Amino acid sequence: MTIKISIDCMGGDHGPSVTIPAAIKFLATQPEAELILVGLEDELRAELKKLGAEANPRLSVVHASEVVTMDDPLEVALRRKKDSSMRVAIELVKEGKAKACVSAGNTAALMAVSRYVLKTMPGVDRPAICSILPNQKDKPTYMLDLGANVDCEAHHLHQFAIMGSVLVSAMEGIARPTIGLLNVGTEEIKGNEVVKATAKLLRADHERGVLNFYGNVEGNDIFKGTTDIVVCDGFVGNVTLKAVEGLARMFKNVLTTEFKRSPLTMLGALFGRGALGNLSKRLNPSRYNGASLLGLRGLVFKSHGGADAYSYEFAIKRAFDAAKYNVQEQLSTMIAELMPRTPDPEESVSTT
Amino acid sequence: MTIKISIDCMGGDHGPSVTIPAAIKFLATQPEAELILVGLEDELRAELKKLGAEANPRLSVVHASEVVTMDDPLEVALRRKKDSSMRVAIELVKEGKAKACVSAGNTAALMAVSRYVLKTMPGVDRPAICSILPNQKDKPTYMLDLGANVDCEAHHLHQFAIMGSVLVSAMEGIARPTIGLLNVGTEEIKGNEVVKATAKLLRADHERGVLNFYGNVEGNDIFKGTTDIVVCDGFVGNVTLKAVEGLARMFKNVLTTEFKRSPLTMLGALFGRGALGNLSKRLNPSRYNGASLLGLRGLVFKSHGGADAYSYEFAIKRAFDAAKYNVQEQLSTMIAELMPRTPDPEESVSTT
Repeated sequence: MTIKISIDCMGGDHGPSVTIPAAIKFLATQPEAELILVGLEDELRAELKKLGAEANPRLSVVHASEVVTMDDPLEVALRRKKDSSMRVAIELVKEGKAKACVSAGNTAALMAVSRYVLKTMPGVDRPAICSILPNQKDKPTYMLDLGANVDCEAHHLHQFAIMGSVLVSAMEGIARPTIGLLNVGTEEIKGNEVVKATAKLLRADHERGVLNFYGNVEGNDIFKGTTDIVVCDGFVGNVTLKAVEGLARMFKNVLTTEFKRSPLTMLGALFGRGALGNLSKRLNPSRYNGASLLGLRGLVFKSHGGADAYSYEFAIKRAFDAAKYNVQEQLSTMIAELMPRTPDPEESVSTT
Repeated sequence: MTIKISIDCMGGDHGPSVTIPAAIKFLATQPEAELILVGLEDELRAELKKLGAEANPRLSVVHASEVVTMDDPLEVALRRKKDSSMRVAIELVKEGKAKACVSAGNTAALMAVSRYVLKTMPGVDRPAICSILPNQKDKPTYMLDLGANVDCEAHHLHQFAIMGSVLVSAMEGIARPTIGLLNVGTEEIKGNEVVKATAKLLRADHERGVLNFYGNVEGNDIFKGTTDIVVCDGFVGNVTLKAVEGLARMFKNVLTTEFKRSPLTMLGALFGRGALGNLSKRLNPSRYNGASLLGLRGLVFKSHGGADAYSYEFAIKRAFDAAKYNVQEQLSTMIAELMPRTPDPEESVSTT
């Protein structure tokens, strides 16, 4: 069965020079995939021609006349650029022409346009951003929310836990993934009021056998791999994610500098190349590219803005896998089961 | 001039076998220092004898019959163990017999006992924990609060910024250290209500020329070294600190595993030993051991519970420096100047 994914080819720091090579490379690995390339048609066709891929029957081009830049205010992305590649790619999902879409554009704009075009799922108050971090068990830790919601109440965190659980279950083939609630300590009495109230909701679900709630986890548990999922509000998630990215970058820079310091250490780098290569491979953020925007009426994936083609391909693969494993349908079922349905959750399109 | 520091020798995972060797080593580097060793006298004297330091005139022993363990509930540390080494070490500061104290005991207990014995400074609502992280400029980033206050309002974060500024100014000799407010983006409109309100207070202080407010910073700015100080609430600070500690540990483990994988990579490690050594030295958390409990009527420093003697010595050094540079007096002056004095800020001793 063919699975179609739409690609916002103009998004991110590099545009078609990254998105199109990644798309071509991805197709070669997935015979079931078809990709719809969205953007300025001339640019896309020129890039396809350059790469000798004009005739690939599993690649189609849909023209969009505008581009949402990294600096565009939400207003512009949402109200003015109605023919942006980002919006058109999302509309293809809404129209059922694609089963998921990928964009490396501005996160806030992507979330706002996705909410506006697709709307929030019934039963979900706020969509969340879920990404993957590597852990010591050499497995992924899924973490959400990573920045869509800076002020959360317990029922929001509760919904994030449910959505994360469905995503991990589908993507990783784990029947009952473990859920950790990010906190300042593991004891039940720890944390602020929102976290304590969330723990109560999750414990109730655990006792009913519908969720696998592990309990509170701390910051280091993300990398220990204590639980499959780590739930937090978007403020904490965003700050934590950027802090660990910052530390990883510093680590890499210091390592490079130190190995270049003398002929002896350069020799060390030469002999240790395999080790350093494996290190960078195991911890390479590229492998974890592709965050899910969860809780919308359609699948949207966000690539890192600065992703190269290697990294962007991972984001496409994640969108493809989510489509293949019917994440959207499973989310609908689980949410209908677990959450009281509100009449119309989509009163506004504002994000933070 | 002699500066006396009291040491809770029983605190931490290792007790006197770490704290006493560290104390002896520290004294050798600081002719101005005198250390008061607090704990079970027999154990302390046995350790001193073992190390041939019984006769050191700059080392004295004060007996305390009880020990606060890592698992003791706050109640026990606070109400029952009234003759604990932790409490006696803090009381020496209150009585003016020591100018600062150091403990590797349970953080929550240390904060609670410190608040109870020393009381909060006039004008300060809540003491905060301030620690140091390394940054790419090879300088320290001071970050607070790291866990004392999980629910904060703007005026709390504002006070943290003032206290952090005084600490950095005194410890690092920087006249007007830069203050960053940890947020999900750098633009003024970003963040939750508390952070936005805090930014207003800090901007007002900046305009009056009393604080050097840089603006919002993101998680990665901690390691870029964008500002000297990063201010956040204790929930965000604690989670972020533990997450980066977790990543650093994973990095170290993966590096070790990978370099041991084959004879070639082991050769790499051998030749690259200098580089790996420098790496670990530059990023070694030991160098940054010694968090300040700021906002009390006396100087208290917290060592990592698992610290070895090398690391514990850094904590003693930080307490000594803070005493030497009159951090407490400078805090009093600055706070009296900048904060409206509340009649009695010490209504309770509860911490989180």
